Amino acid sequence: MSRPRFISFTRNGALGYGLLVDHGVVDLSGRHGKRWPSLREVIGDGALLSLAEESAALSADFPVEDIRYEIPVPAPEKIICVGVNFPDRNEEYKDGQAAPSNPSLFIRFPRSFTGHGQALLRPPESPQLDYEGEIVIVIGKGGRRIAQSEAIEHIAALSLCNEGTIRDWVRHAKFNVTQGKNFDRTGSIGPWLIPYTDESQLADIKLETRVNGDVRQQDRTSRMIFSFRKIINYISTFTTLVPGDVIVTGTPTGAGARFDPPIWLKPGDVVEVEAEGIGVLRNTIADEV
Amino acid sequence: MSRPRFISFTRNGALGYGLLVDHGVVDLSGRHGKRWPSLREVIGDGALLSLAEESAALSADFPVEDIRYEIPVPAPEKIICVGVNFPDRNEEYKDGQAAPSNPSLFIRFPRSFTGHGQALLRPPESPQLDYEGEIVIVIGKGGRRIAQSEAIEHIAALSLCNEGTIRDWVRHAKFNVTQGKNFDRTGSIGPWLIPYTDESQLADIKLETRVNGDVRQQDRTSRMIFSFRKIINYISTFTTLVPGDVIVTGTPTGAGARFDPPIWLKPGDVVEVEAEGIGVLRNTIADEV
Repeated sequence: MSRPRFISFTRNGALGYGLLVDHGVVDLSGRHGKRWPSLREVIGDGALLSLAEESAALSADFPVEDIRYEIPVPAPEKIICVGVNFPDRNEEYKDGQAAPSNPSLFIRFPRSFTGHGQALLRPPESPQLDYEGEIVIVIGKGGRRIAQSEAIEHIAALSLCNEGTIRDWVRHAKFNVTQGKNFDRTGSIGPWLIPYTDESQLADIKLETRVNGDVRQQDRTSRMIFSFRKIINYISTFTTLVPGDVIVTGTPTGAGARFDPPIWLKPGDVVEVEAEGIGVLRNTIADEV
Repeated sequence: MSRPRFISFTRNGALGYGLLVDHGVVDLSGRHGKRWPSLREVIGDGALLSLAEESAALSADFPVEDIRYEIPVPAPEKIICVGVNFPDRNEEYKDGQAAPSNPSLFIRFPRSFTGHGQALLRPPESPQLDYEGEIVIVIGKGGRRIAQSEAIEHIAALSLCNEGTIRDWVRHAKFNVTQGKNFDRTGSIGPWLIPYTDESQLADIKLETRVNGDVRQQDRTSRMIFSFRKIINYISTFTTLVPGDVIVTGTPTGAGARFDPPIWLKPGDVVEVEAEGIGVLRNTIADEV
């Protein structure tokens, strides 16, 4: 049996959530919206798997053409991103620094993302819109100072991210990448949440980013500098993780900025982020108007 | 007449909001909670001033001793902080770099703050808890790419922040200050919101931080490198500001890290952040247990 795929969507202007089946959507928000207003509350109740099971026999309520994909957890308390987490990425910075001993972290606002199938927006302020394909973990069980040995049990679900970046704006000021990572709708998360049940879903999977079909980034999670366990342990050292929190775990080498000359995304391009067992997140590029 | 002071508070375990009068609290959440669940919604309706006026004749519903102060906007969509925004602060970094042309920005989660009167927590991971006194602006009217000429009209209210920092953790990784700025309850915002009505409330006011009564930081807003207008204009270039968004506008020279040897905060210390026309934000220090 294929893994359940939970989606958040907009239909007729209203936000909902459901399960993707064949070419249709089982509407779960219509059935459970009072108890669980969004997937965040489903996750908070640890109910993703049981909800998938009890809904397995249902057939689609409407075709997938009726919905617009939204980011799977529409309003997480936190979206925390890891920088420089694959081999060769540190060397790409050419600053002579040794590999870091702790993960670099930055924060993105939900409004800097859009859902699967939507256009990433190139703002008028810069032509340097760049892709970064990444794996997303969504926290199920919250906690503080979570031990590495138990960290993996705090994951509720997996997803994908195109952690789209306005490259010149990440170095726009003396410190921090905040502004280049937070232009409205320059990244995407999705297409769906795959419930996490087993470490083999994460331990050594291929992560690949394609632009117009050309492979630009490709690596395996077994080569990550900071493991999923370490990331959860480290972040929870300073902040209490809560259900629905989103962690974007870092991108392989090969972003457009690393080409000579750089190759920026332009309107009409199609970017795909794919990971084994999770799916393909596909977005087009458009100029913000 | 003194300016109205809006507070958010916890009383008998429930979150509420009201007006501070003499030594008591006018309970506004009890009267208007259905229409406006928190001060964020009051601000979103542009109703701070009218609510203050219509409530001016009311007397206190309970004494201030009955409440615990919470951060004034309990769940803002964003808390954005400006780094290096007063003269001499750039020189403090001793990196030979010229004054920056754009503000450095970072993001804090609401849970990294506590309210007025509460203890800031020194975590077991580091003794380097440091203070940073700052002025807070709260956005009333949202927008994107807000012109400097109109920026000031987007402010709904003013407050204060002790932007408490775990100093060694701001340089814990290759990039970004995220982790050192986001330990739970290491900073504070408050005590209250003062409605913004006139640029003279901000243009040239004194900002001062005291530790156990000793003045450690003191400067005037007229000397800020990036004006309130510039900050709003710059941030709204990349992200859509919405009502209730919190902007923490930078600290003067004189944090504990700048002494030789550094002077970190320790349990029992009392830190006060004061600005003319806004008030005094006071917190003690305690070890996290």
